Amino acid sequence: MTRIRKAACVGGGVIGGGWIARFLLNGIDVAVFDPHPEAQRIVGEVLDNARRAYGRMIQAPLCAEGKLSFHDDLATALDGAEYIQESVPEQLALKHRVLGQIEAHASPEALIGSSTSGFKPSELQEGAQHPERIFVAHPFNPVYLVPLVELVGSPANDEAALARAADIQRETGMMPLRVRKEIDAHIGDRLLEAVWREALWLVHDDVATTQEIDDVIRFSFGLRWAQMGLFETYRIAGGEAGMKHFIEQFGPALAWPWTKLMDVPEMTDELATKIGDQSDTQSGMHSIRELERIRDDNLIGIYQALKANDWGAGRTLREMEDRYFERAKAGAGAATPDYAAPLTLHRCRVSGDWLDYNGHMTEYRYLQVFGDATDAFLGHIGMDAAYRSAGRSVYTVESHIRHLAETSANTALTIRTTVLGHDAKRIRIHHEMLDEAGTLQATAEHMLMHVDTQAGRASPMAAPLTDRLAALSPGQRGLAAPDHAGRPIRDIGWPDPGAA
Amino acid sequence: MTRIRKAACVGGGVIGGGWIARFLLNGIDVAVFDPHPEAQRIVGEVLDNARRAYGRMIQAPLCAEGKLSFHDDLATALDGAEYIQESVPEQLALKHRVLGQIEAHASPEALIGSSTSGFKPSELQEGAQHPERIFVAHPFNPVYLVPLVELVGSPANDEAALARAADIQRETGMMPLRVRKEIDAHIGDRLLEAVWREALWLVHDDVATTQEIDDVIRFSFGLRWAQMGLFETYRIAGGEAGMKHFIEQFGPALAWPWTKLMDVPEMTDELATKIGDQSDTQSGMHSIRELERIRDDNLIGIYQALKANDWGAGRTLREMEDRYFERAKAGAGAATPDYAAPLTLHRCRVSGDWLDYNGHMTEYRYLQVFGDATDAFLGHIGMDAAYRSAGRSVYTVESHIRHLAETSANTALTIRTTVLGHDAKRIRIHHEMLDEAGTLQATAEHMLMHVDTQAGRASPMAAPLTDRLAALSPGQRGLAAPDHAGRPIRDIGWPDPGAA
Repeated sequence: MTRIRKAACVGGGVIGGGWIARFLLNGIDVAVFDPHPEAQRIVGEVLDNARRAYGRMIQAPLCAEGKLSFHDDLATALDGAEYIQESVPEQLALKHRVLGQIEAHASPEALIGSSTSGFKPSELQEGAQHPERIFVAHPFNPVYLVPLVELVGSPANDEAALARAADIQRETGMMPLRVRKEIDAHIGDRLLEAVWREALWLVHDDVATTQEIDDVIRFSFGLRWAQMGLFETYRIAGGEAGMKHFIEQFGPALAWPWTKLMDVPEMTDELATKIGDQSDTQSGMHSIRELERIRDDNLIGIYQALKANDWGAGRTLREMEDRYFERAKAGAGAATPDYAAPLTLHRCRVSGDWLDYNGHMTEYRYLQVFGDATDAFLGHIGMDAAYRSAGRSVYTVESHIRHLAETSANTALTIRTTVLGHDAKRIRIHHEMLDEAGTLQATAEHMLMHVDTQAGRASPMAAPLTDRLAALSPGQRGLAAPDHAGRPIRDIGWPDPGAA
Repeated sequence: MTRIRKAACVGGGVIGGGWIARFLLNGIDVAVFDPHPEAQRIVGEVLDNARRAYGRMIQAPLCAEGKLSFHDDLATALDGAEYIQESVPEQLALKHRVLGQIEAHASPEALIGSSTSGFKPSELQEGAQHPERIFVAHPFNPVYLVPLVELVGSPANDEAALARAADIQRETGMMPLRVRKEIDAHIGDRLLEAVWREALWLVHDDVATTQEIDDVIRFSFGLRWAQMGLFETYRIAGGEAGMKHFIEQFGPALAWPWTKLMDVPEMTDELATKIGDQSDTQSGMHSIRELERIRDDNLIGIYQALKANDWGAGRTLREMEDRYFERAKAGAGAATPDYAAPLTLHRCRVSGDWLDYNGHMTEYRYLQVFGDATDAFLGHIGMDAAYRSAGRSVYTVESHIRHLAETSANTALTIRTTVLGHDAKRIRIHHEMLDEAGTLQATAEHMLMHVDTQAGRASPMAAPLTDRLAALSPGQRGLAAPDHAGRPIRDIGWPDPGAA
């Protein structure tokens, strides 16, 4: 497939702007036609968000953006465009008028997708000169980030045109789903509209507020649906007996007033078998146990991602972890440690997603654990948010790490910390990482520098750091430094070229 | 609040097993009553999953598990239990019988929650001796991982009992949501049942298969709903004009056949205002721009989490990144680099979630980038999956990192790699990390060891690594090693105790 060079977007609101961002950030030129006086501002705001998002999301070198142009007349906007996306308001008469104008100026081969939420392609194609290349390409907000696009054709469509449209959408990172039969509101908005109407009743009847409905969604099935849909989730709920068992169990509920949607298909043997067979095709390559673990790993990853943003289920996880830490602290007692021995200030467990292709803890996670141990040490000597808020902090300026074992998933790690020395501005520390059996996994030697964060340069430490270092100094200075501390990485030179 | 010591679970299937795991893994003893002959096996399987999940999820020291016991008679199971959770099949007569037996043996203060999906608390309380402490506590599968529990009372309930139940649920990491008005199927299952019925029609009418429906969900609104619900998402879609604009725009669709749910509340001014006001209370503390960025950051985190499992929208992201890499490669050409200069084999961008509390790239992410550069170097000399599949790999055994600048978010990093030497089993390399302006951010010196992964010990390198090292050796050995290479971390000793 040759990549397209130019797309045109007719209508540049939030949805049109999302399409524009998709094309541009994937290196495709975009010409925009939108008579709205604020179109450039609105598109610019969507683009700002999209550039920010791609900078954070894409762990690969971004390509050069396509060229963006705004046009006062439709003809120049469409000139040379291989793919045209229409995103004007949801009124059929307006869509017919705009599609007629597009056909009057576009080349007969240009693909024309409509962002319509509800109209069927056959409705859009009414009166068209070349209905075979007009189709529904229904995206989801934010279009630059959400992968799905529902690609819907009618019997009048050319299959090759739809396949080419899917290729172009895939090229911009989207996930085109060919809808096999046209229907009002396609698939996604049918499901969404059912939930919306049900939710309106709940608000109307004072059963729940908008916040409560949102919380129910984002703390329960929304988490499941980010990674498995309705049927695969229920297949798991059915257990080893699978989908049929689930339908048997919850089939009777179809007749109960569990929703306002009381127009239900009869759960005949035929329908149950159809669902069971389709579910087998979809998920039968995994055992229920495998599906459970895939689901759990996905949920855990999602919680940890949300935890980084202190949001939703991620905040719940953080609060849960805080309780575990509190219990651990309560169990360990809050006594001052024995400074004449190495300090144990940090413990953790090797997470299942910390492994590399060799199957053991990946290199940088060792430094993550050592870094957390350094933070625990700094916290112990009094560096907290209050200390930092005065414009002071401690940075690591140099590290020497030695890997001594292949650390595997779920290993409970203990870090033993020794202070090797310090002066007015610097602290030199050494960490040992031990597994449950006390076997040394790795060591780290760090030089830490106290800094004035405003001036961005080294500065002398202040209380309470100075006091706490003075308190631990008599004990720690008596400990022998490990042999490898203060040693460089060895020079191994090059083999003799003649010997190769 | 004092923590509870003992809970009892009546019914130990998939849902009961999930409750059991929640309690046990949070340090609470659990007594189980379930006459099913396979109850112990089923609970054991749920517990296996839950232990695995907590080991991966909880980034804190896990507490000692509670004590698990199975009982042949209900009386001993309930003895001393402060919280009792009933999870028997969804038949009202059965639930009445079981609740009656529970009340006959439990203390009158014990809290009794029911996992019922659909029955109202007032229905469960019929004929109870102490209806005030019987309530609905409806969880979501997998109960040990999904936070939400719908806590529903009737007018007969004691508020203090419900508050105590919520505290206990929170203590196990759950997110109890007090449902303000009892209704068939509470809130979550009403929304789910509406989607289920709509989805059954789509399968029944051959509009979509189970796989296609699931893909529509997990590649579009499921991703949004893992972090914001229906109303907050639509508030953003409404743009600066907010919720009211959204309702104006999509209000007319309520009359259209977009779903089988045609029994809709009339969208009166009163209802529109109620929704607008509730949405302001819920989300009004954030501007639309802020909400967009929170949403985008959450979506990006979710995609990256799913990418680690090569699943769903995460797989789409990986494929997208692969295309960016391909374009970058195509742009850079595939020529052999100039070996008489440092090698540029890895570039990346500092992700927004790589920052620490000082606001710049956190310590271990430097090693992540250097590790990726080491992998790019190893790939360049021919270490690939085929090479590794023969039981050989290269491990980092020692690293020396120097931090020279405060690297900020979105910085485009380039890594310049020099080979400092090698012998038959080892390679010593040096990386420089540069920002867009060419300013040195950090350096890393690594000793890499070739290993026989079966035997777990050092072994001589084989082709193509040996050949490629021989090819780059003449150019690289001519490069001067940086001054700091081969230097140790300096010994700074201790300040004179008399001077303190």
